[in-house]
Amino acid sequence: MKLIAFDADDTLWVNEPNYVDVKQKLCEMLSHHVDEETLAVRFYDAQIRSLNTFGYGAKSFMLSMIETAIELTNGTITGTEIQQIINVGRKLLDFPIELLDGVAEVLETLSKHFDLMVLTKGDLFDQESKIARSGLGHYFKHVEIVSEKDEQAYLRILQKYNVQPADFLMIGNSLKSDILPVVHIGARAIHIPYATVWAHEQVVDEQLVGKSFTTLNSARELLELLETIKGAT
Amino acid sequence: MKLIAFDADDTLWVNEPNYVDVKQKLCEMLSHHVDEETLAVRFYDAQIRSLNTFGYGAKSFMLSMIETAIELTNGTITGTEIQQIINVGRKLLDFPIELLDGVAEVLETLSKHFDLMVLTKGDLFDQESKIARSGLGHYFKHVEIVSEKDEQAYLRILQKYNVQPADFLMIGNSLKSDILPVVHIGARAIHIPYATVWAHEQVVDEQLVGKSFTTLNSARELLELLETIKGAT
Repeated sequence: MKLIAFDADDTLWVNEPNYVDVKQKLCEMLSHHVDEETLAVRFYDAQIRSLNTFGYGAKSFMLSMIETAIELTNGTITGTEIQQIINVGRKLLDFPIELLDGVAEVLETLSKHFDLMVLTKGDLFDQESKIARSGLGHYFKHVEIVSEKDEQAYLRILQKYNVQPADFLMIGNSLKSDILPVVHIGARAIHIPYATVWAHEQVVDEQLVGKSFTTLNSARELLELLETIKGAT
Repeated sequence: MKLIAFDADDTLWVNEPNYVDVKQKLCEMLSHHVDEETLAVRFYDAQIRSLNTFGYGAKSFMLSMIETAIELTNGTITGTEIQQIINVGRKLLDFPIELLDGVAEVLETLSKHFDLMVLTKGDLFDQESKIARSGLGHYFKHVEIVSEKDEQAYLRILQKYNVQPADFLMIGNSLKSDILPVVHIGARAIHIPYATVWAHEQVVDEQLVGKSFTTLNSARELLELLETIKGAT
């Protein structure tokens, strides 16, 4: 194993619950205009639409919240209320980073034996800020922030660092972004599920048939696999 | 010379005039609330403030426009009007790319002799979309999108690609981001000024004292320098 890459959000630290929380606050702010279920559906639609125009990340999420609020109030929402939405959304840019169980110890140990990389998708500014706030930056020799984590993206990165798929291990919480494309290119993947999965990242069971990867309960269990990983070619 | 990097916005293609145009439309939309000069000053302030929270790029710009409009109307602006601002701002995400004079020919020629890179700062999603829309992607072996183009960023990239400063040439329109940090790390820089410079990118003349770099009128003139560049170690 030459290179071990970690996904960031909900693999190294808690992320999705902050988005759930902000969405909940948006529901409360719009509760006199619309019921929670309608908002959830409309907001998910707006988010998926805006992935194509705005991409992933906090700013895209904020613009989606604003557009959804305008749409659901037929344009009657005031600037003052929209400013409140922006203020709630700003939390997504500076929430304190809560590391997941065992992450710091695992990185401390692994970084002594391997080149480590953060490999995450999303908004560049946003993700760099979270890495800085996490205090984990010094464990990582490389940081790669991409707009999509598909097979092409993984192949491009491996080529850039001159690493063969057989020498690459990806660790992450998303089957869609961290596991399946990595297995497809012949590299190794370890799945550490996280409680909250954004609907857009879900995969159907059929996609997993015949795919080989390891699933762990927490990053801490990586330590038990250390000798196996070191031994892997 | 092993690696030649090009800035993107206003070096390869027209960018800033699109922002000026959107700002002009924002002025018109808010003209019954505020005079143009006040708006320009307040909007510049909002943009600089938001660089720290939102970073560069179209989404950051849109959020700044929205916040400025809310502030200048004391919150009385309606959702419908804010949607109009968003719609105007969306132009920044999909305007047709107009290449600058000579760019395609220069890239065609240089790419036969050197590894070329796009090295730009800004929003990842935004910049990738512009590269795709430009149709120039195939000339570039590498694409690096960073959040700031300072000396550290250049050194990090040169280390990643295992290139010495003496073997690196940066070409761009911004003295602050493309020229000065590059000259400071001992690499070579070629400045191709563009008519419109965003105030944030301006440098004072004193910063240029003792700095050595070449200035050209247009990318086309790079062809005349080809032999010199090829000869440079």
